[in-house]
Amino acid sequence: MAKKKIAIVGGTGYTGVELLRLLAGHPNIELSVITSRSEAGRPVADLFPNLRGRIDLSFSEPDASRLKRCDLVFYATPNGTAMKQIPELIAAGCRVVDLAADFRIKDVSLWEQWYGMPHTSPALVKEAVYGLPEMNREALKSARLVANPGCYVTAATLGFLPLLEQGVVSVEHLIADCKSGVSGAGRGASVGMLMGEVGESFKAYGVPGHRHLPEILQNLSIAAKHKVGLTFVPHLVPMVRGIHATLYARITNAVDFQALYEERYRDEPFVDVLPSGSHPETRSVRGSNECRLAVHHPQGGEILVVLSVIDNLVKGAAGQAVQNMNLMLGLDERAGLDSPAILP
Amino acid sequence: MAKKKIAIVGGTGYTGVELLRLLAGHPNIELSVITSRSEAGRPVADLFPNLRGRIDLSFSEPDASRLKRCDLVFYATPNGTAMKQIPELIAAGCRVVDLAADFRIKDVSLWEQWYGMPHTSPALVKEAVYGLPEMNREALKSARLVANPGCYVTAATLGFLPLLEQGVVSVEHLIADCKSGVSGAGRGASVGMLMGEVGESFKAYGVPGHRHLPEILQNLSIAAKHKVGLTFVPHLVPMVRGIHATLYARITNAVDFQALYEERYRDEPFVDVLPSGSHPETRSVRGSNECRLAVHHPQGGEILVVLSVIDNLVKGAAGQAVQNMNLMLGLDERAGLDSPAILP
Amino acid sequence: MAKKKIAIVGGTGYTGVELLRLLAGHPNIELSVITSRSEAGRPVADLFPNLRGRIDLSFSEPDASRLKRCDLVFYATPNGTAMKQIPELIAAGCRVVDLAADFRIKDVSLWEQWYGMPHTSPALVKEAVYGLPEMNREALKSARLVANPGCYVTAATLGFLPLLEQGVVSVEHLIADCKSGVSGAGRGASVGMLMGEVGESFKAYGVPGHRHLPEILQNLSIAAKHKVGLTFVPHLVPMVRGIHATLYARITNAVDFQALYEERYRDEPFVDVLPSGSHPETRSVRGSNECRLAVHHPQGGEILVVLSVIDNLVKGAAGQAVQNMNLMLGLDERAGLDSPAILP
Amino acid sequence: MAKKKIAIVGGTGYTGVELLRLLAGHPNIELSVITSRSEAGRPVADLFPNLRGRIDLSFSEPDASRLKRCDLVFYATPNGTAMKQIPELIAAGCRVVDLAADFRIKDVSLWEQWYGMPHTSPALVKEAVYGLPEMNREALKSARLVANPGCYVTAATLGFLPLLEQGVVSVEHLIADCKSGVSGAGRGASVGMLMGEVGESFKAYGVPGHRHLPEILQNLSIAAKHKVGLTFVPHLVPMVRGIHATLYARITNAVDFQALYEERYRDEPFVDVLPSGSHPETRSVRGSNECRLAVHHPQGGEILVVLSVIDNLVKGAAGQAVQNMNLMLGLDERAGLDSPAILP
Repeated sequence: MAKKKIAIVGGTGYTGVELLRLLAGHPNIELSVITSRSEAGRPVADLFPNLRGRIDLSFSEPDASRLKRCDLVFYATPNGTAMKQIPELIAAGCRVVDLAADFRIKDVSLWEQWYGMPHTSPALVKEAVYGLPEMNREALKSARLVANPGCYVTAATLGFLPLLEQGVVSVEHLIADCKSGVSGAGRGASVGMLMGEVGESFKAYGVPGHRHLPEILQNLSIAAKHKVGLTFVPHLVPMVRGIHATLYARITNAVDFQALYEERYRDEPFVDVLPSGSHPETRSVRGSNECRLAVHHPQGGEILVVLSVIDNLVKGAAGQAVQNMNLMLGLDERAGLDSPAILP
Repeated sequence: MAKKKIAIVGGTGYTGVELLRLLAGHPNIELSVITSRSEAGRPVADLFPNLRGRIDLSFSEPDASRLKRCDLVFYATPNGTAMKQIPELIAAGCRVVDLAADFRIKDVSLWEQWYGMPHTSPALVKEAVYGLPEMNREALKSARLVANPGCYVTAATLGFLPLLEQGVVSVEHLIADCKSGVSGAGRGASVGMLMGEVGESFKAYGVPGHRHLPEILQNLSIAAKHKVGLTFVPHLVPMVRGIHATLYARITNAVDFQALYEERYRDEPFVDVLPSGSHPETRSVRGSNECRLAVHHPQGGEILVVLSVIDNLVKGAAGQAVQNMNLMLGLDERAGLDSPAILP
Repeated sequence: MAKKKIAIVGGTGYTGVELLRLLAGHPNIELSVITSRSEAGRPVADLFPNLRGRIDLSFSEPDASRLKRCDLVFYATPNGTAMKQIPELIAAGCRVVDLAADFRIKDVSLWEQWYGMPHTSPALVKEAVYGLPEMNREALKSARLVANPGCYVTAATLGFLPLLEQGVVSVEHLIADCKSGVSGAGRGASVGMLMGEVGESFKAYGVPGHRHLPEILQNLSIAAKHKVGLTFVPHLVPMVRGIHATLYARITNAVDFQALYEERYRDEPFVDVLPSGSHPETRSVRGSNECRLAVHHPQGGEILVVLSVIDNLVKGAAGQAVQNMNLMLGLDERAGLDSPAILP
Repeated sequence: MAKKKIAIVGGTGYTGVELLRLLAGHPNIELSVITSRSEAGRPVADLFPNLRGRIDLSFSEPDASRLKRCDLVFYATPNGTAMKQIPELIAAGCRVVDLAADFRIKDVSLWEQWYGMPHTSPALVKEAVYGLPEMNREALKSARLVANPGCYVTAATLGFLPLLEQGVVSVEHLIADCKSGVSGAGRGASVGMLMGEVGESFKAYGVPGHRHLPEILQNLSIAAKHKVGLTFVPHLVPMVRGIHATLYARITNAVDFQALYEERYRDEPFVDVLPSGSHPETRSVRGSNECRLAVHHPQGGEILVVLSVIDNLVKGAAGQAVQNMNLMLGLDERAGLDSPAILP
């Protein structure tokens, strides 16, 4: 089978370099184009020396005609860019995975409220398939446009999913206490993300409201077939990679939760339910596309606790995007994603 | 006023070195004895070079007769040691602050269940005053024996206290999602706390049950004058110092929560309620005895979120012990505790 | 004695907050003014919450007339600012400690070459006293203008000083392999200092030439009374505070080096020569003004190895500035600088 | 080609888990046996959850008869174990890579002096091939027993090699100032490697003498065809993985050093000479088998500075062992070693 031609638009951030790392080892694709206005002309491996000898490409100016010749284009741009450029590509027969948030929220006015700008492609929002394979695998196979989920959203949704689908917990007061490494904040210069500011310290942020809240709510409401209530508190951990979601729900129907989770994810290639009593570490998924889950029912009480870890740059971004690409292009869903996590 | 004579039993752990650091700068005391069976004869400053030129003492073998000549003895020993040795000291007129857990839980059988050993001094458990000045200041002044609170317990209790005292939240399903730096696990050799194991990673632990749970429950039930329900999940953060408690409660009576907290802690020397909308960082209390709190009411919903940070070795251990000592000896409650936190 | 009136110009960086922390506990001074163009009007404790309850001041617009009413002004501004503003203050009778590099290099043309700008106050360069008390204590007492040393420079100079003063090593090929925590790079927004870039990684930088090289050379040449040759390689350590200098020199005259160092620094309040065989840790000086040194003569060979640690923000910046202030104002040299380091 | 049968003896340390990670993705081998006395019976993926779904094996008791049926056995045991067990395997026709130090030093009495025990297999020391492919590729292909190099040794040797082979620097006073992440110290319980002890701090250790010194000296003397003099100072960096060697040599013959390095390593699959002016970061090799080098000639002076980075667990241990295995078994030298480093 001829290799598929792939492009990346906006490849200078952490999501970009991670996409490059994963695609460099993918057996079925050929990376044809990577664009960056600010770094045009510079070899990719000059900016990201881990890719020396693996990626020979240089960044190029965005050029729609070149992108259209690709089978699939990844958008790793800031929010608000993809929605302007994608319609032309879709019309030309290109398929697109957007790693930003432009097409994640089905309610356009809600999106506009949280992202603070008018949406320029509401029709495509309707068409876009939400790129969580564990919820939408079949639809993803034929999708023209995939909205790749947020990192916190992936960890929280996979953790709550079995409970809500089975209706065994109250949906009124769900709590997602989430912790992320600093790479989730991206590679833009800012005082707040200097190591001098966030090293050797821990804090919550965005408690009054974080953009991933409506996205998690959307997923959980679909799973529960009912509007759910959720309190979401993100925190910043002094480490580079990893998300840990600690999820709380009040039990309404006490089933064998361990069995429920194992059953739900039995055939999922990238969701791993740990044995009863486990505490997943973020390092157990570092660099890999796995989500590892553990289910706890402390002291047999009313509250169920689910622990969910992912690598925010892999299953929380670039890895999930590659998984979606694999589905869209009819490839093995695991292709390019089979390296074990790096531990320690 | 003559300086008070102070002893430390078991000073080779992190709580010990922190007590030494704080006492080295205390204007009203004289450190007379510091014992350690394993390090007897070794200069303290040889083990802890930050104390070179500040503490001239050497570790000595435990010797009750020398301890009895002190005004106050700190026990910084493993759980189960103080309860055996303290009765003799109390009988001799010594006053004691136990930094371990021996006297924290009033229900002796509950203590025996969580700590896995029979209690040898149940009478003293009854007498001991729980050393949280924000709850028990008056009783502490005349206490012969003070049970210094656990680190997680201090952060969680101070965060929930105003809500429970005022009865404005449901007490059934409180949640304390707590995160601690690694120094909370102590200075004993263990594979699990190697930097190679816990560096650049994040995890929960003890979800099925952690010894601080009954202690938090005891405090909260006293505050609420009612049995409370609590889910407590501790996590390990890849940093050395600091605890961050993220607390969730369902509102039953929507008052001005910011005002409630400011009012409750107005006269407390070591509790600082941040302005509305704040997110306290653990580094803002590093090395200091403060607890900083922030109160959030996300989207005006049903759940209140309280953020509480302390330095686990200071307000969570040695600093609170010094604060208790100050109260017991009639000294200025702030004495020896007035250095600002070190930031960055 | 009336408290001395002190001002800080440019207090929003790490050097600024550290000066504030140290001055907050200083018994003999009153902090009158702290200026910042960008943060004028904002309470200091709002930017640096560790200072809540310790510093009531707000940042104000720079105003020479207010500064002139102070006994001493600290400049914690970027390089090139102090040289423009200081002449007016000096003329008005103010004394000044400049924490930037404007007055450190006596050879003005050399300074202009390394700092890439013309010097506007060459006459004051001549007058300025270099603020390393271990070299210039007497001159500092009467200085109107003190050039506070660079952080790497302090660690390297104190480490080499005894050897060069006594002429017991070759001065041709000295090597200073230095490692710094990230706070040395300041609090300005930059991609290169994001935790995502520098966390969990180690690198050298500035090997072709770093601005601290001519400053170290100047000190060492004065000590040796001879031009010296030095290779200086700085490295970035994934931690917030601390400098470790590893110094290499070829022995020409094998004396008792341990005794040499102990003798040289016997009366220095802030230089601590560790026992033979020691390896100082940066944490042993975290938050304190000490420099800890150890001298090694591996396998009795031709190369002497000196290990020197400081806290880059204290003895490497703000602490040394306070030490210089104490000398200039006739105060106890240790005033405000007596807290032990925080370990762990 | 049938897959080669491989065994690992002693697989519970960091070198063991890293070998497992690399072998899990190796296309030409089958992992048949992994032994551990302490963990016998326990699934490998239970101890190292990153290997869940990748390695189905359980640890087994050491059993020579099973090992003998393998084509190649890795020894990842403490020093002194392999020398006792290997003779039997070699006699049975097994080939062995020893990742410990038992066969690294050709001078047996020197080895005994540094490792503090008598050597039980001096004949095999003579036969063993030192496993640095960049020095000994041809001999490795037919070796029965390979001594896999130490981590510091690999970084330092590859950095100095071109200079010594060409005789362009003085060999009398070479300096290797090396920095390592904590995983280099292994996975054994110890107070000194707790995160509470080594987090947020930096120190040198072993300055009086470290076991890697004679090994580096042996390599450099072979390269120089002359006895060399070296000062080696190792340091501990508060990060998990990575070694950075900063190497200093006095130039005796000023050639085009950049060209010299590029030429020397042109055909090496795992040595990457960076462009002139570069500063390699340890993260640029995290998880990969590369050594990245940069050559600096500061200010055109007499001292050459070489920067060399490796991942201590990959090119410094398990990756190099796999590279050696590939050579021994006639496989592609890159097999199983082609994943790019993980950055950030």
